[in-house]
Amino acid sequence: MASDAEIARAAVLKPIEEIGARAGLDAAALYRYGPHKAKVALDAVAALPARRGRLVLVTAISPTPAGEGKTTTTIGLGDALNLSGRRTVICLREPSLGPCFGLKGGANGGGRAQVLPQDEINLHLTGDFHALTAANNLLAAMIDNGIYWGNPLGIDPSRVTWRRAIDMNDRALREIVVGLGNNGAVRQDGFDLTVASETMAAFCLASSLADLETRLGRMVVGQTFAREDVQASAVKATGAMTALLRDAFAPNLVQTLDGSPALVHGGPFANIAHGCNSVAATDLGLRLADYVVTEAGFGADLGAEKFFDIKCRQAGLAPAAAVVVATSRALKMHGGVAKADLGRADPQAVRRGAANLRRHVENVQKFGVPVVVAINHFTADTEAELAEIFACCADIGVGVHLCRHWAEGAPGALDLAEAVAALVEGGTARFAPLYPDPLPLDAKIERIARDIYRADGVVIAPAAAKKLARYEAGGYGHLPVCMAKTPYSFTADPARVGAPEGFTLPVRDVRLSAGAGFVVALCGDVVTLPGLPRRPAAESIGVDAAGVIQGLF
Amino acid sequence: MASDAEIARAAVLKPIEEIGARAGLDAAALYRYGPHKAKVALDAVAALPARRGRLVLVTAISPTPAGEGKTTTTIGLGDALNLSGRRTVICLREPSLGPCFGLKGGANGGGRAQVLPQDEINLHLTGDFHALTAANNLLAAMIDNGIYWGNPLGIDPSRVTWRRAIDMNDRALREIVVGLGNNGAVRQDGFDLTVASETMAAFCLASSLADLETRLGRMVVGQTFAREDVQASAVKATGAMTALLRDAFAPNLVQTLDGSPALVHGGPFANIAHGCNSVAATDLGLRLADYVVTEAGFGADLGAEKFFDIKCRQAGLAPAAAVVVATSRALKMHGGVAKADLGRADPQAVRRGAANLRRHVENVQKFGVPVVVAINHFTADTEAELAEIFACCADIGVGVHLCRHWAEGAPGALDLAEAVAALVEGGTARFAPLYPDPLPLDAKIERIARDIYRADGVVIAPAAAKKLARYEAGGYGHLPVCMAKTPYSFTADPARVGAPEGFTLPVRDVRLSAGAGFVVALCGDVVTLPGLPRRPAAESIGVDAAGVIQGLF
Repeated sequence: MASDAEIARAAVLKPIEEIGARAGLDAAALYRYGPHKAKVALDAVAALPARRGRLVLVTAISPTPAGEGKTTTTIGLGDALNLSGRRTVICLREPSLGPCFGLKGGANGGGRAQVLPQDEINLHLTGDFHALTAANNLLAAMIDNGIYWGNPLGIDPSRVTWRRAIDMNDRALREIVVGLGNNGAVRQDGFDLTVASETMAAFCLASSLADLETRLGRMVVGQTFAREDVQASAVKATGAMTALLRDAFAPNLVQTLDGSPALVHGGPFANIAHGCNSVAATDLGLRLADYVVTEAGFGADLGAEKFFDIKCRQAGLAPAAAVVVATSRALKMHGGVAKADLGRADPQAVRRGAANLRRHVENVQKFGVPVVVAINHFTADTEAELAEIFACCADIGVGVHLCRHWAEGAPGALDLAEAVAALVEGGTARFAPLYPDPLPLDAKIERIARDIYRADGVVIAPAAAKKLARYEAGGYGHLPVCMAKTPYSFTADPARVGAPEGFTLPVRDVRLSAGAGFVVALCGDVVTLPGLPRRPAAESIGVDAAGVIQGLF
Repeated sequence: MASDAEIARAAVLKPIEEIGARAGLDAAALYRYGPHKAKVALDAVAALPARRGRLVLVTAISPTPAGEGKTTTTIGLGDALNLSGRRTVICLREPSLGPCFGLKGGANGGGRAQVLPQDEINLHLTGDFHALTAANNLLAAMIDNGIYWGNPLGIDPSRVTWRRAIDMNDRALREIVVGLGNNGAVRQDGFDLTVASETMAAFCLASSLADLETRLGRMVVGQTFAREDVQASAVKATGAMTALLRDAFAPNLVQTLDGSPALVHGGPFANIAHGCNSVAATDLGLRLADYVVTEAGFGADLGAEKFFDIKCRQAGLAPAAAVVVATSRALKMHGGVAKADLGRADPQAVRRGAANLRRHVENVQKFGVPVVVAINHFTADTEAELAEIFACCADIGVGVHLCRHWAEGAPGALDLAEAVAALVEGGTARFAPLYPDPLPLDAKIERIARDIYRADGVVIAPAAAKKLARYEAGGYGHLPVCMAKTPYSFTADPARVGAPEGFTLPVRDVRLSAGAGFVVALCGDVVTLPGLPRRPAAESIGVDAAGVIQGLF
């Protein structure tokens, strides 16, 4: 089969006005960025009828190096629902620029299930992340500027927690010292990847531009010498930050290879943030379409849980169905097979690994959301291996469909689409978050650890427990919890694949994201600014004589 | 009169397709960014006939805190030339984002001579500066990444000269230490404002995307342990940098309040760089229009000299006429009046200050370019003061016109337009740069200092002289020189206004910008990353309930 890039380049894209019309949007509602990208103007969104569509989440088993194809399946399912005559919009995260220069590949699907134009989406799209970087760094500049000019807020320079942001994998900026040369307070600082910033998380959870400004104002940027929290509103940066983000806040419309409308907007990290596209885009999709298909980062233990407990809770969303994506290859790895040995058929390993799938399915069902399993087909899959997945699903009474959207496009996911539609139209969903708002923060962590990860309990480090108590006392106890844990295991140890039991979850530290509206529980190291590998993909990226970008994906 | 913002907001903008048509561009040539901004696709540019227009430079007397209105006059003249029936395109620099949050105001004209939409132009325009920031910082990340992974190029971390860039006035990032926490080589580093980066200068001087990649590759980023220069091409970042800049390289089309086409593209600093809009935009304008009106940063001693000796030399441009902008107020300051006393009529001071105007006019004429003087009218100007300017111009035999474009728009600059057209159509221009390529670098500096600044001589610091010798030996001796000197005086002392004599010019340091293609001579402190003031304009910027940005200009 042709490569992703060959398929993308051979595609004849439709004018974005045609895609808008397919989604029910007038050309006047579109703020175009060239022929194939547009922002949907916020006043046009406000003039639309209220949400009416049904929301479908695509989530997955615990990720492995074998690849699961969650984004590809999200796109394939959306295309197939459209093919089946159901008006469907796909909602995805925007890819981050920095990682594109590290390891090859963006995050826009593959094969015959892609969103286009890939090059533009991977590089700058409509500049949203650049605007977010600028907004984040304006706040940083104003914090240090205030300290420089007499420090009227009495901020303790050694207790500034607000970090700068960059959309570039630049290891050298992880830990730095700023303010040298009589340029203000000399202090330790660092850059996070833009997608790891609270600015991004708040942006993606805001229900309106006004709500965004309120959220930005609530962000805690440090402490005074008297150990009182300093909010961004006190720094007086939030109006200008909102001005920087005004255009970015409008969702981006692009298309799939099949011509389905796709809203690609926002992209917070799935570890220290919640890992979903913007509420603004999901809301727009639900106003326009009968079906909105979206995804969440990592496996269902992290992605779906945060989608339900953070995004759906805050935005008042009620998912109607969920798809859990699995592959035979990945389940083999959960069954103990090393990556190098994946070429060898091993149904027994698939059977063992299916315990991971089973646990994720059961977890999603705990939220009152009906589930179907999608097997993303790989050409080397054997009948015996696939039979093990079918057997597992039969055992737990969940539907399962073999999907070939990667090779065939929409027709390859039509069975899945019909199954999803049957679940949605069956009306069996009774969505509820896992825990109520008033539950104390430590109890929320424990609830997630026990019910979702199946831990025997939680060990919260003493300093973290003290911070939780402080958050409770400060009026943040009602917030949901955002778990920052390895995605590769239900435990905090990435090596423990499958469905491990008999472990406790260590919580090393906690952080308040008051603007995003959650408390982060850190269960391991979280890299907030990735580095480049020894041979960065950037070395092979370039523009050819025809102006075509080569080597980007 | 209404404020700039009130005038801008009351304007009914034309669709950008209509502006494109006025410039002779099909809608298919436009890559639109919303209804009022577009990039002109590079393949459409390549398909246009060769340059045919006549190039008019707007420059000015030495700037003062009284304000001269060079951009306003550039816009007013362009509008007036169009009003007079001459097909005219205006070429301007893009404003930098960072300074917008410091002191109020962008750089897009004022009164009835503005380019629109001001908010969008001031904030992100089409994202060019964000792309430049990303390209600059990708190179920085790859330099440090190479050092981290075994340093195959043998780069001495203490001799990395490539700095990171940010489009934010953030004093704390001027001097930093990077690489702490076992994240590579711990070394001193710093951020420059994006417009101060060599990436920006190379971008603005490149004749094509291929030329841009070549220029980026030539940039020197540091030295090896063996003290050999390391070029960016060795870091293998230039292909990916070019990919990041591919879309940015296409010129941006916007409109004036009067509906004239304006190409707003690129914006290098006028001190350590050459301070002109992109060659790509000027070239496009000359292919489209009969007249292209453009400006250069600071006064004519810096702006016009660099425009002629760097931009015109490199791009093969031959200006047909120049306008030197003066105001009665500013000449009063050159005549010794303090800013607080500008309200008092003082024709004698204007007469004294006119020496500054006279010198600039003579300087421009040395390049073989015919000159006309534009007096940008202020309502408080007295007849007696204006008469002094007219007398000075009569004395040196140069035309002079009182211009009221700020208050009246195009009709207010019609006399100036006719005078400029007469100069152009008279065909008297015999443009030549001030010095030939083969002149040694130190002699080039001396030529500029003597002929333009009227210094008695130059004192080059010993270390700088050694560097110049090294550049000559390294094959860079043919490059033009980019003077980094205070714009407020012909001397290196900003306090010496008027037309000082009897001074020598100190050159403290020199720098090679091999990709931009010039050698910078530093005659004083140059701030490459401005800070924010005690009360930043950002504190008053916001978005109102209607989504309109307030307080930005």
